[in-house]
Amino acid sequence: MDRNSEEYKKKVADKKLENDEWTKRKLLGLAETFYDQFDAGQVPHVLMPSRTKKNLAYSDESEVWVYGDIESERTAKTVKGAHQLLRTVSVSDFVVSEHLKNNRSSTLRELYYISEGWGAAKFHAQAESDRLIEDLEIITGAQREFFHVRPEEDGATMYGPLLLREETKRGSRDIHCQKDIGEGGYQIPFNVENIEFLHHDATMIIAVETGGMYARLIENGFDEKYNAILVHLKGQPARSTRRIIRRLNTELGIPAVVFTDGDPWSYRIYSSIAYGAIKSAHLSEYMATPEAKFIGVQPSDIVEYELATDKLSEQDIAALRSELSDPRFASKYWKEQINLQLEIGKKAEQQAFAGKGLDFVTDTYLPNRLKDLGII
Amino acid sequence: MDRNSEEYKKKVADKKLENDEWTKRKLLGLAETFYDQFDAGQVPHVLMPSRTKKNLAYSDESEVWVYGDIESERTAKTVKGAHQLLRTVSVSDFVVSEHLKNNRSSTLRELYYISEGWGAAKFHAQAESDRLIEDLEIITGAQREFFHVRPEEDGATMYGPLLLREETKRGSRDIHCQKDIGEGGYQIPFNVENIEFLHHDATMIIAVETGGMYARLIENGFDEKYNAILVHLKGQPARSTRRIIRRLNTELGIPAVVFTDGDPWSYRIYSSIAYGAIKSAHLSEYMATPEAKFIGVQPSDIVEYELATDKLSEQDIAALRSELSDPRFASKYWKEQINLQLEIGKKAEQQAFAGKGLDFVTDTYLPNRLKDLGII
Repeated sequence: MDRNSEEYKKKVADKKLENDEWTKRKLLGLAETFYDQFDAGQVPHVLMPSRTKKNLAYSDESEVWVYGDIESERTAKTVKGAHQLLRTVSVSDFVVSEHLKNNRSSTLRELYYISEGWGAAKFHAQAESDRLIEDLEIITGAQREFFHVRPEEDGATMYGPLLLREETKRGSRDIHCQKDIGEGGYQIPFNVENIEFLHHDATMIIAVETGGMYARLIENGFDEKYNAILVHLKGQPARSTRRIIRRLNTELGIPAVVFTDGDPWSYRIYSSIAYGAIKSAHLSEYMATPEAKFIGVQPSDIVEYELATDKLSEQDIAALRSELSDPRFASKYWKEQINLQLEIGKKAEQQAFAGKGLDFVTDTYLPNRLKDLGII
Repeated sequence: MDRNSEEYKKKVADKKLENDEWTKRKLLGLAETFYDQFDAGQVPHVLMPSRTKKNLAYSDESEVWVYGDIESERTAKTVKGAHQLLRTVSVSDFVVSEHLKNNRSSTLRELYYISEGWGAAKFHAQAESDRLIEDLEIITGAQREFFHVRPEEDGATMYGPLLLREETKRGSRDIHCQKDIGEGGYQIPFNVENIEFLHHDATMIIAVETGGMYARLIENGFDEKYNAILVHLKGQPARSTRRIIRRLNTELGIPAVVFTDGDPWSYRIYSSIAYGAIKSAHLSEYMATPEAKFIGVQPSDIVEYELATDKLSEQDIAALRSELSDPRFASKYWKEQINLQLEIGKKAEQQAFAGKGLDFVTDTYLPNRLKDLGII
């Protein structure tokens, strides 16, 4: 369908309205619950999963972290609780009557400032408003992107054989993530739901921790030679980055691998992509990619390739030990790798491969590992 | 000229070769100097401006920070000095025979790892190789981008009425920074020299500190209404970000303003754009934009608009006091503003304008300030 046709524009607008309408119903539904409770002579309250660590469980079925059955009650029985419900209603009202109605958005920081004018519902720190948005996600089952609430900074990029369509406020944009962009790559927007995948020739997704390695793979033409979609993680990945990896993996069936430094903090980056983060367990099934595989840097690579290393710090050792008792690292593979790393007492960065020449990582290391993993 | 024509491609390749050839001559020239010194029976040495704070001067003529006349000598008379000259030659050789010859690039981090194989010329920490690259910039008068050396992360973006052509390793890309990109904006590449400006309708450049405010201006259509090119600074701006602001200002004659939070650290962001940074004084004339004006948040705005504030910390107060004796803030305007801020003891973020509604900053604040500055 011609993207400039009235028919196409109407279709896009309809789909957007549908999402906004769904979110609006969820939020108004919450307000109605309070009304009904008043009507029935009850003190207004809402039940939600307890967000304590005790209530987190690793789901064998979906292979991600989810909340368990313990519930906590937010109720207007106390002044503090009443304030909190007032804030919940105020934020819902703002999202419905400003964001959804007028197709606007705000950052989490702006939302905190916006509450200045809300009298008793005013937030006293951004941590409070951030937390309330998370509560609203859990209560409604919507993601904060559906409320049109964005983070302060994002900025991860992507590069590879993928043609996508992004619906922007200025109209739809068809962008090929190799042919239509500069060397910086395609900037992933905060709301990945606005992207439609039109066509791809990809056989794999490689999520890369550092900007230096991401640039190396692009310069060496790894995306072209192996039809790889390269995603820059920028350290601990943003929600939008994790979401687009999941969408590429589940909707298009493209296998995903994660390429990080060889240290315990980087293994956590991998696990947050594969299994979800404890902090956002309510979104695991939306953002995690359980099929994602860890490609390296493995502790065994440090030994095999004699990479330039740094000594493990006390914190590194403690983090590795804690991973040994973490269900996400309970496999034979991880136990072996982590024990090996504790034994050699070293860590290595992914850019350490440069010590073997600029092409070693793309000509030798990655092809070998992709064969090990059965991807090529 | 058709960008797919052989003639155009040849022209681009020629221009690139010309830059690379110039850089190569500079680096080989340095090596020749050492040969000539050997020939003349001298111990090899090189003279360069001293990089101590004492040798920094504010140039009234170019209105930026530059090095003064004090010189320091790098000489092979000591073992340490000989090592340093060996490293200088090794890096020059690598840049010429790998980067320039094969059209490759490396990150600063990779360069450090690459030296693993250089025996006595090996670097023992990245700080050493970073510093040597800066020395080479000063000695040759080239920028590190000409050596094809890139930073680890960059990632600033730009949005506005500008059609540009970026020469990438995959060919040239014509990109309109409103019509051809997603909501994330155009990703500024590490080497801004690869960009040619083809057409623009811009009447101003607005450099914005935070991602939240940058997104706000895009969402509110400020770029369209005022024909503004919005540049996201991401805090203290990268070299590429400062360079593109300078190029837009000097080559296209577009006035530039800087929009930051209202605190002493943000005033330093402004001054690094306008006057250059002490750390990179040898590049001021290449990266600074002396015409750039500070639009806000001004301490007087905090009073006038009754913005939500935080109390100044001890560090804030010390930084403000130090700015009072800084030649870059020696004007009547800055003295008044800084003294006012010390008096009220408060600071405000740019997103605090959200407390007055989502449109206040674009409908009221910025238009008023742009009138004050004579830009609209």
